[in-house]
Amino acid sequence: MSMEAEIRALAQETRRASRQVANLPTTVKDRVLAAMAEALLVRKEFIQAENEKDLAAGRQKGLSAAMLDRLALSDKVIDSMVTGLKEVAALPDPVGEISEMVRRPSGIMVGRMRIPLGVIGMIYESRPNVTVDAAALCLKAGNAVILRGGSEALHSNLALARVLRDCLAAEGIAPAAIQVIPVTDREAVTCMLRLEEEIDLIIPRGGEGLIRFVAENSRIPVLKHYKGVCHVFVDESADLEMAANIVLNGKTQRPGVCNALECLLVHRAVAAEFLPAIGAKLADAGVELRGCPQTLALSPTAKPAVEEDWGMEFLDLVLAVKVVSDMDEAMAHIVRYGSQHTEVIVTTHHPRAQRFIREVDASSVMVNASTRFSDGGQYGLGAEIGISTTKLHAYGPMGLRELTTRKFIVYGEGQVRG
Amino acid sequence: MSMEAEIRALAQETRRASRQVANLPTTVKDRVLAAMAEALLVRKEFIQAENEKDLAAGRQKGLSAAMLDRLALSDKVIDSMVTGLKEVAALPDPVGEISEMVRRPSGIMVGRMRIPLGVIGMIYESRPNVTVDAAALCLKAGNAVILRGGSEALHSNLALARVLRDCLAAEGIAPAAIQVIPVTDREAVTCMLRLEEEIDLIIPRGGEGLIRFVAENSRIPVLKHYKGVCHVFVDESADLEMAANIVLNGKTQRPGVCNALECLLVHRAVAAEFLPAIGAKLADAGVELRGCPQTLALSPTAKPAVEEDWGMEFLDLVLAVKVVSDMDEAMAHIVRYGSQHTEVIVTTHHPRAQRFIREVDASSVMVNASTRFSDGGQYGLGAEIGISTTKLHAYGPMGLRELTTRKFIVYGEGQVRG
Repeated sequence: MSMEAEIRALAQETRRASRQVANLPTTVKDRVLAAMAEALLVRKEFIQAENEKDLAAGRQKGLSAAMLDRLALSDKVIDSMVTGLKEVAALPDPVGEISEMVRRPSGIMVGRMRIPLGVIGMIYESRPNVTVDAAALCLKAGNAVILRGGSEALHSNLALARVLRDCLAAEGIAPAAIQVIPVTDREAVTCMLRLEEEIDLIIPRGGEGLIRFVAENSRIPVLKHYKGVCHVFVDESADLEMAANIVLNGKTQRPGVCNALECLLVHRAVAAEFLPAIGAKLADAGVELRGCPQTLALSPTAKPAVEEDWGMEFLDLVLAVKVVSDMDEAMAHIVRYGSQHTEVIVTTHHPRAQRFIREVDASSVMVNASTRFSDGGQYGLGAEIGISTTKLHAYGPMGLRELTTRKFIVYGEGQVRG
Repeated sequence: MSMEAEIRALAQETRRASRQVANLPTTVKDRVLAAMAEALLVRKEFIQAENEKDLAAGRQKGLSAAMLDRLALSDKVIDSMVTGLKEVAALPDPVGEISEMVRRPSGIMVGRMRIPLGVIGMIYESRPNVTVDAAALCLKAGNAVILRGGSEALHSNLALARVLRDCLAAEGIAPAAIQVIPVTDREAVTCMLRLEEEIDLIIPRGGEGLIRFVAENSRIPVLKHYKGVCHVFVDESADLEMAANIVLNGKTQRPGVCNALECLLVHRAVAAEFLPAIGAKLADAGVELRGCPQTLALSPTAKPAVEEDWGMEFLDLVLAVKVVSDMDEAMAHIVRYGSQHTEVIVTTHHPRAQRFIREVDASSVMVNASTRFSDGGQYGLGAEIGISTTKLHAYGPMGLRELTTRKFIVYGEGQVRG
């Protein structure tokens, strides 16, 4: 059988399983998730032995220490997967929720019922814990899932999937509801992206290269986010102590993540007061500033920014800084260089706060808070399967509900159209 | 300038205009829509003279009478566009609606605000009234729109767009917010489908060939529906008089539309009573039946169905009929041959009604009502830009709200993450 035929057959099996999973009662889904948590602990030796094969191959291939660390299924990583499974089991089930039920002039009752999407395809890079986290969220939302992790984690992913699938089988659920593609070739991804009859949604997670490849080759809808270039605009009316806290937190609390702050925009009316102070605090925290000419005049430690620094996702202790003449200039900068991830204004001026909230086009727009709050957990979504910075279906952090859709339901009493 | 560069430049202009349109107050949008309705009447002569150029070319090319009829901007068609514009003006504005606002444990307030999608690309075939209807809905939802109609309607579409754009300009709105692609080549569609930076959503309307072409060539998300293969399942507990009304209405009230009935499934326990009666009524209405062997035995006018009749969108006075042994067989038939458009059960048995509603995967699932109700107007969406039979973003009839998305908004008081 060709690779394409093999992957198609596997996806068709998952499509069939998805019909069963879509109709599972909440209690059964939660029981399976609890059993999976238990099984990860009981079968830890098997999982870690398989993981060791990947680690050994990785060492042989000369993977960096950071890469090997991401690959390792240590006791701590397994514990966090166990906790994740229990948390997903505890979340409310979105499936079956009925809303907006109204009686129409014809007499029919029309409403919407939340239903699973069907089959989700996850394409991701090295961390094998995504296998468990994604499978749990998909299952809870009534979906089957096809997982295609990084080639360097294949043994680990197959081992984790085997444990999860055994738990499905023990409840009489088709194991094909959780599928790992056993082929590590990139061609396997291309095959997967053409199965628009079998897969309803693709969620890629990884570097920009992977995500662009998926977006350009997929016939299936893709929920994606390329990067997070988050700005904070310090308005002339800002509480400058608050602004300093928000800037420091956004840049230094966890610089390597997508909701970290990358560019500070300061109203010129407060630049002379604010920039020297925040510049010193950021320098103390080890942050390199790359500033516009006005910034350089006010913040002696800053280096000159070059054009590429605007709109750059540094993911590091580097911050671009620009003085702007008003909020319009700040908003124009965000339109030009932002990534529709998270944009913040610090202000005490109510009309400007409201205008910023209304007019800035980003998946999260904030007043007087750190960019670091842009997160499914912080927003109360319970768990996050990813972040979308494109607008169709979901915009921003995606939780369980974003793995579902709504159908129309109609209750009549024999009505026909005249 | 190459065609590709020309279309890209035009789309970039529309992207810029979309930022202005996104922030228009409701009153301004409604005033422009009212002015457009007025202008269609005032400039009717110009519109009809341009339309006549298309009609003359169509006659020369030997277009069918039906095609020419669809192309003609008669007084009646112009009146219906005027009415449509006024109706859209009267609809509530979805933009700016805030929902699900909650205070999180961190103290931040998180909610969602409804916002426009940005730029919508409409790709459609002959009817030039789509130009006005689509532009009105897109504008009301705060979107700019790029319209690419059929080549045989180009003069008409350009004339209508000129009238609409003049109304935008009179209110100080960039005319590029409503754009007609002036190139009739299919290559122009391909160019448009690659502009993922400039266009947020593609909605194709037309035959299955056009829609497949768009779906396979687009890098932009597509909301589409290929066909409507709607079933009615008459359960053993059905009120058979009600069932007969629903079947007759679904098949004969307007057979050429996507929510018309195409296949009748009858529980074997009531087949002997129901089929002869409904068969006679359908025959009186000029409907040709294509039946399974059991149907043929009970309905002497029926012809034998061949495999292709199951799942066929006849769009005509033809109905496929099958006797099934129970609801499971009916539901399996719908999984295999349905098009996820509209599925109906006629029953008096509450548990089966509820199971059908819950388990059948279609964008509209109904109990005891005609498939013909599956329609944005009937559902109370106000106006319909299309129907989606894929699940991402929208499933079923799409109204104004489906031309929007939601962003997260956060109000803090200086919170940072610990």
